[in-house]
Amino acid sequence: MIHTLLCDLLGIKHPIIQGGMAWVSGPSLVVAVSEAGALGILGAGNAPPSLVQAQLREIKARTQRPFGVNIPVFSPYARDVVSLCISEKVPVVTTGAGSPAALIPPLKEAGIRVIPVVASAALAKRLENAGADAIIAEGNESGGHIGDVNTFPLVPQIVNTVRIPVIAAGGIADGRGFAAALALGAVGIQMGTRFIATRECPVHDNYKQLIVKAGDRATITTGHSLGHPVRALRNPMTRAFQEMEKIGLSEDQLLEFGTGKLRLAVEGNVTEGSFMAGQSCGLVHDIPSAAELITRIVAEAEAVLRTLPQFATNDD
Amino acid sequence: MIHTLLCDLLGIKHPIIQGGMAWVSGPSLVVAVSEAGALGILGAGNAPPSLVQAQLREIKARTQRPFGVNIPVFSPYARDVVSLCISEKVPVVTTGAGSPAALIPPLKEAGIRVIPVVASAALAKRLENAGADAIIAEGNESGGHIGDVNTFPLVPQIVNTVRIPVIAAGGIADGRGFAAALALGAVGIQMGTRFIATRECPVHDNYKQLIVKAGDRATITTGHSLGHPVRALRNPMTRAFQEMEKIGLSEDQLLEFGTGKLRLAVEGNVTEGSFMAGQSCGLVHDIPSAAELITRIVAEAEAVLRTLPQFATNDD
Repeated sequence: MIHTLLCDLLGIKHPIIQGGMAWVSGPSLVVAVSEAGALGILGAGNAPPSLVQAQLREIKARTQRPFGVNIPVFSPYARDVVSLCISEKVPVVTTGAGSPAALIPPLKEAGIRVIPVVASAALAKRLENAGADAIIAEGNESGGHIGDVNTFPLVPQIVNTVRIPVIAAGGIADGRGFAAALALGAVGIQMGTRFIATRECPVHDNYKQLIVKAGDRATITTGHSLGHPVRALRNPMTRAFQEMEKIGLSEDQLLEFGTGKLRLAVEGNVTEGSFMAGQSCGLVHDIPSAAELITRIVAEAEAVLRTLPQFATNDD
Repeated sequence: MIHTLLCDLLGIKHPIIQGGMAWVSGPSLVVAVSEAGALGILGAGNAPPSLVQAQLREIKARTQRPFGVNIPVFSPYARDVVSLCISEKVPVVTTGAGSPAALIPPLKEAGIRVIPVVASAALAKRLENAGADAIIAEGNESGGHIGDVNTFPLVPQIVNTVRIPVIAAGGIADGRGFAAALALGAVGIQMGTRFIATRECPVHDNYKQLIVKAGDRATITTGHSLGHPVRALRNPMTRAFQEMEKIGLSEDQLLEFGTGKLRLAVEGNVTEGSFMAGQSCGLVHDIPSAAELITRIVAEAEAVLRTLPQFATNDD
């Protein structure tokens, strides 16, 4: 077991958060992760509130444990999903893709724990001041929408900047990464890519197999010209997008080409889908159940934590 | 004290390597780092062999401790500097910016420890097969010439791939990063940016002050269109280079504009210089002596290593 103050803050057994992934982290994964003692997060994406409501009710029918919802700030339904989280008494909300400062007060008033995902020390500080309960410091190695600072330097800089607890995200897929995150000053980890390759994740098996087979350099980033870089596996779709950016297609043309491609990936379309994934994909070699995965990673991290003091000697 | 097998491999007290930085890590820094019990590395860059020879003789006159030379594979003088390292009995050679496979056999025959700096698991494996004694796994957050995989996912993937010892580099500037590197499976760390801001580093004070003042998002990368991305501090020079890449200047025009800009930085030219630095710059807040820095980082890391087991509880 590994116990940190994040366990007490959220009422969970293991200080592990499953990253909220639009169209990917549906109720079956959320329930499996939360039942295993970590925190499952429903990815609301830009899904209509009626769908999110049905998913929330399914989750609540299947687990009594704490869980969360991830709300991307850019979603046209962001405020509706905030209202839904309040009416459905969701315990935790994480946010991403922008500053959620305006969304924090209503959530806090309803007693919901708010944990923004951020990519810079400056935004972490602003959101601490806006009332966030904790911060997920997400490095550039993550899958999906990313910032420009990498996990290793980002986490300690955010730990230096805020007083609220910091969770490390980006590039973590095993117990070594979990232990390293604690060494950097984090009180827990968030993993996305690693949880895609679990039995309960409701994506097509092709998506899981692509992650299992991927190596360290399997991902590329696109969308720099749009100001919203995205990391995904290298495939015909992402290479085509990269080429379209290089030759200077307009923002409208790029957005039109990119829209809906994550859903194609979720459905298993290996040539046209955008298989969002982080650089930790090269550390993923199997498709266990979420519970097996969590047990294994905690055991690995515990072994690392107990072994590390051997390097500290008393010689001078 | 922190003792790992890297100490035994290189005959050093602390498993810390000062990254070899062209025009930056000159004899005064190398001597200070090696005298403090870590491994100082002369950055040969593309300097002519006569200059490197004079620097080597100065280093050997001032310290009996192990030290090294970094040879960038692309240097027109790479083979000459290899010969020089052999004739001058340099204990350790690190290499960068490409595959040094062809340079390894003569160095090994002369009894020199060879430690390539690599940015992917595939190259690490090839160089282990070519006879490398250890591997420096350098993440994308480093300063200067960089690869595309970040430290957090890169280090454990290279540890999984090779049997020789792995040193972590990129984004490390304090004892938390040192401890985290050990958690990821590394046996030591290499730091570049942190050592620029030391008293003995022979660069203009402007360079050191820019690093001290920099925040987490202070760096940008340029040179993607040339296939050789470089990370440096955001300033008028790097912004201009970025703009020239965006409008599609030719490779020759870009190379002409970029050449010599690191030397201008070393001389303190804040508008025209290319101040190469990694994302760890936001963790650097002072300009200590190299010895003070090493003592402090070891003490911090030791404290982290001794504290971490508290998170592992015996509850089930």
